[in-house]
Amino acid sequence: MKEITGATRMYGIVADPIHHVKTPQRLNEYFDQIGHDGVCVPFHATPDTLATVVAGLRALRNLGGFIVTVPHKTAILALVDEASDATKLIGAANVVRREADGRLIATMLDGEGFVRGVLGNGHELKGKTAYLAGAGGAANAIGFALAQAGVASLTIANRTQAKAQDLKTRILTLIPDAQIHVGTPDPSGHDVVVNATSLGLAVGDALPLDVSRLTPDQLVCEIIMQPRETALLQAAQARGCRVHDGAPMLASQIPLMAKALGVPGAGD
Amino acid sequence: MKEITGATRMYGIVADPIHHVKTPQRLNEYFDQIGHDGVCVPFHATPDTLATVVAGLRALRNLGGFIVTVPHKTAILALVDEASDATKLIGAANVVRREADGRLIATMLDGEGFVRGVLGNGHELKGKTAYLAGAGGAANAIGFALAQAGVASLTIANRTQAKAQDLKTRILTLIPDAQIHVGTPDPSGHDVVVNATSLGLAVGDALPLDVSRLTPDQLVCEIIMQPRETALLQAAQARGCRVHDGAPMLASQIPLMAKALGVPGAGD
Repeated sequence: MKEITGATRMYGIVADPIHHVKTPQRLNEYFDQIGHDGVCVPFHATPDTLATVVAGLRALRNLGGFIVTVPHKTAILALVDEASDATKLIGAANVVRREADGRLIATMLDGEGFVRGVLGNGHELKGKTAYLAGAGGAANAIGFALAQAGVASLTIANRTQAKAQDLKTRILTLIPDAQIHVGTPDPSGHDVVVNATSLGLAVGDALPLDVSRLTPDQLVCEIIMQPRETALLQAAQARGCRVHDGAPMLASQIPLMAKALGVPGAGD
Repeated sequence: MKEITGATRMYGIVADPIHHVKTPQRLNEYFDQIGHDGVCVPFHATPDTLATVVAGLRALRNLGGFIVTVPHKTAILALVDEASDATKLIGAANVVRREADGRLIATMLDGEGFVRGVLGNGHELKGKTAYLAGAGGAANAIGFALAQAGVASLTIANRTQAKAQDLKTRILTLIPDAQIHVGTPDPSGHDVVVNATSLGLAVGDALPLDVSRLTPDQLVCEIIMQPRETALLQAAQARGCRVHDGAPMLASQIPLMAKALGVPGAGD
């Protein structure tokens, strides 16, 4: 990457742990591509120090903003000045832009990133029936984005059903005519199946849904980036499904993130 | 420079204004040289937000420390946990190391950087008579360093004489047998003449001393980096003096800064 000078605009990613993040590499590559003199660096903040770190970042006059990831996507909302209605309903954000006066504006792009990644790989969502495993932070973002992308119906399956019901209610607040159901571990009968739980991140994790019910006409999607091929994707391939791994969700988000950070010249 | 990842160790320089700083370039080049996976970035903090920014930096677990420059070198001392006796007597610091537990340790390297730069250019200081214009932050650091470098005597000249007297008293606290005098704008009779005021930074500044009293046997030194050739250095050359510009003070400090920041493998 290019040389950092006193005039280089600062961006960061706030996470805990930090060593595994891939956003600095991708965002810096994008800055180079569009000719922006900016740099994204890793900021390791733990939950107990997040508020102090964010206060410090807010005070940095050459900071354009920062990306937020695990475990801070929910906590960050209480520390910013503004967020869109959808972001507030999702209850989590992953991009914070710093205005010149220090005001912090939060946006949640995970869902849009996921949807763009799926579409970008040539798959369709509009009019399709979708199954979403999980009702946590990432699932919330993806649930809203699938509804906004025009799926015919969305089934939300979560171990704690009340959380699935709650997500359904919030999506209906924003999109009253969406067709949303609370489901079971059985994904059969849906065109698109999405794992938005963290099951699959660690070796030996349980599967996030009943893979014996997958059928070859289904597209099975992951949001986990590491490992690239989770046990779910392996099982789905073995049953003849098409699969979509976790990598495109971040890759598709990079231009969106740059735009949300206020980077001049950043496009969609 | 090399790619920044989540594992890259963070360093910064805190300044106001920020655009002119050269430390990120030099320190990042040095990190590359010694094979350290670290990056130094600009942090623009104003005097009213310095404490908030430093609290945020203290909380960043992947931060090794930061460089401090104008106008924060004095204010930083009140915000750290520890400093050497010399640094406390100087009353200013330009490097803050962050320990793993978040403790901040301050050091002042400007004086040592200046002395190393002069010696590195083949000039001598030990046993020489020295004249120092100024009694502000930089002059304090250089006054102590000249005394520690073994000059035969040190004359301190400052518009407000009380500040020169105060600097003399503090140097004598650390080095009781140093020969120190409070002087006038006349630099004659000294082997080495140093401008440690900020006069010369801006076009049209007054000269920091009476250049008509310079003699060809003298070495005239600057700490101002931009412009490289100040009005003082031009006048000194016109009078046949050898001159030493402001660049080596930072260049000589880079390995010292890296060592003070706790960078593994950083040498003297």
